[in-house]
Amino acid sequence: MRNIKLTIEYDGTDFCGWQLQPNGITVQEVINKALSKIEGREINVNGAGRTDAGVHARGQVANFMTESRIPAEKYRDAINSLLPDTVRVRESAEVPEDFHPRFSAKKKTYKYYIRSSCVMSPLKNRYEYYVSGKLDTEKMEKAAKFFIGEHDFMPFMASGSAVKDTVRTIYNAEITVNGEEIVYTVCGNGFLYKMVRLMVGTLVEIGRGKYEPEYIAKLLSDNTLRATVAAPARGLVMESIEYDIGG
Amino acid sequence: MRNIKLTIEYDGTDFCGWQLQPNGITVQEVINKALSKIEGREINVNGAGRTDAGVHARGQVANFMTESRIPAEKYRDAINSLLPDTVRVRESAEVPEDFHPRFSAKKKTYKYYIRSSCVMSPLKNRYEYYVSGKLDTEKMEKAAKFFIGEHDFMPFMASGSAVKDTVRTIYNAEITVNGEEIVYTVCGNGFLYKMVRLMVGTLVEIGRGKYEPEYIAKLLSDNTLRATVAAPARGLVMESIEYDIGG
Repeated sequence: MRNIKLTIEYDGTDFCGWQLQPNGITVQEVINKALSKIEGREINVNGAGRTDAGVHARGQVANFMTESRIPAEKYRDAINSLLPDTVRVRESAEVPEDFHPRFSAKKKTYKYYIRSSCVMSPLKNRYEYYVSGKLDTEKMEKAAKFFIGEHDFMPFMASGSAVKDTVRTIYNAEITVNGEEIVYTVCGNGFLYKMVRLMVGTLVEIGRGKYEPEYIAKLLSDNTLRATVAAPARGLVMESIEYDIGG
Repeated sequence: MRNIKLTIEYDGTDFCGWQLQPNGITVQEVINKALSKIEGREINVNGAGRTDAGVHARGQVANFMTESRIPAEKYRDAINSLLPDTVRVRESAEVPEDFHPRFSAKKKTYKYYIRSSCVMSPLKNRYEYYVSGKLDTEKMEKAAKFFIGEHDFMPFMASGSAVKDTVRTIYNAEITVNGEEIVYTVCGNGFLYKMVRLMVGTLVEIGRGKYEPEYIAKLLSDNTLRATVAAPARGLVMESIEYDIGG
């Protein structure tokens, strides 16, 4: 048996997220269908993380086991020829048998795109969160730094998650500004349900002047508080996942 | 009477081009509708240029005359509040009464986006032309230079145009490369029907090795030849228009 790792890019706008579900088309489903056709049997890939409806990816990772003789790197073009234009396998490669997209992951990086301006940009709107008016990006930069380190991120987990251990380590969290475009890049050992979007929602409230940057530290230390505003899915991209092996 | 100039950005993917037409929604139509509602009478804006179905704009220019007392710069937000997310007025300003978006234009700049790669990018595909494999961008750069100057661009005009005078001046034409992304920027005093897309189609054929860069010079000097391949609409953006006045 060979273990094949896929690195996947997708425009999440018209998908009901990554994970298979009874109602609505998901990214996992279109990849399963393409692979099942190639392999001539039912394939169900494992993904590194479930992205929500409307969330994009440049570096989602999935795997499947096979006994076929197709060279690992050939799967890329074979799968791509069967996918809609909104999904592409960027790379296919053989990895050790014990590699698992989720359990073997060491670091995940997400990017979140914001436009702070008087006018929304139709040419960018599919991939960014438009915030009317001017945000205080210096405050947002300062606030983002409070996420770095090991914290109980329970205040940044949306309800509806059954996860018990809510402690995560954030290695890097930063805001970069290019004119009207603001990008939040966050790298950590794992993320809770809607955690990045709740982080961004809170950063935008700080940028609007509703809270001071220290409000992040307060949320992380006082477990009676909760981040309440999740930024919309459209601005979020699962950027990359790092592994020790096969990465 | 005041003359109001609008600078407009749009995602052309789902529009049947700029100009009003009986079947299918156009950009001009949605702007006319919004303005007519604000003015309480039928308004028909003049555009600087007709963009084809699927072509985008960051700097389309239109105008209309009004006797209303609404400050010129207030039109922007008023119109935007009535537009779909795929169209936005970036600026509204009063200009001299004799200003006309098309006839007063001195220079127009278009950009065309190409991806030359083994894998199409779902996150960019709405706004670029994906070319499978590697293009010779050095040849394309060299070829683009042949467009500069005053030439009879008849070989780069699609059939179906009634234009008689096909001489145009190109002030600048260049290829810039950033990894897999290739951008063609062209600035001229005017463009014929599908001229930019025929230029790009030919540049891509040169990049693929079908012709040498000098083929552009040959097309421009031998009026029995015609550029035959138009690059797709999705990669084209009407970038900006320069005026002496009101610009």
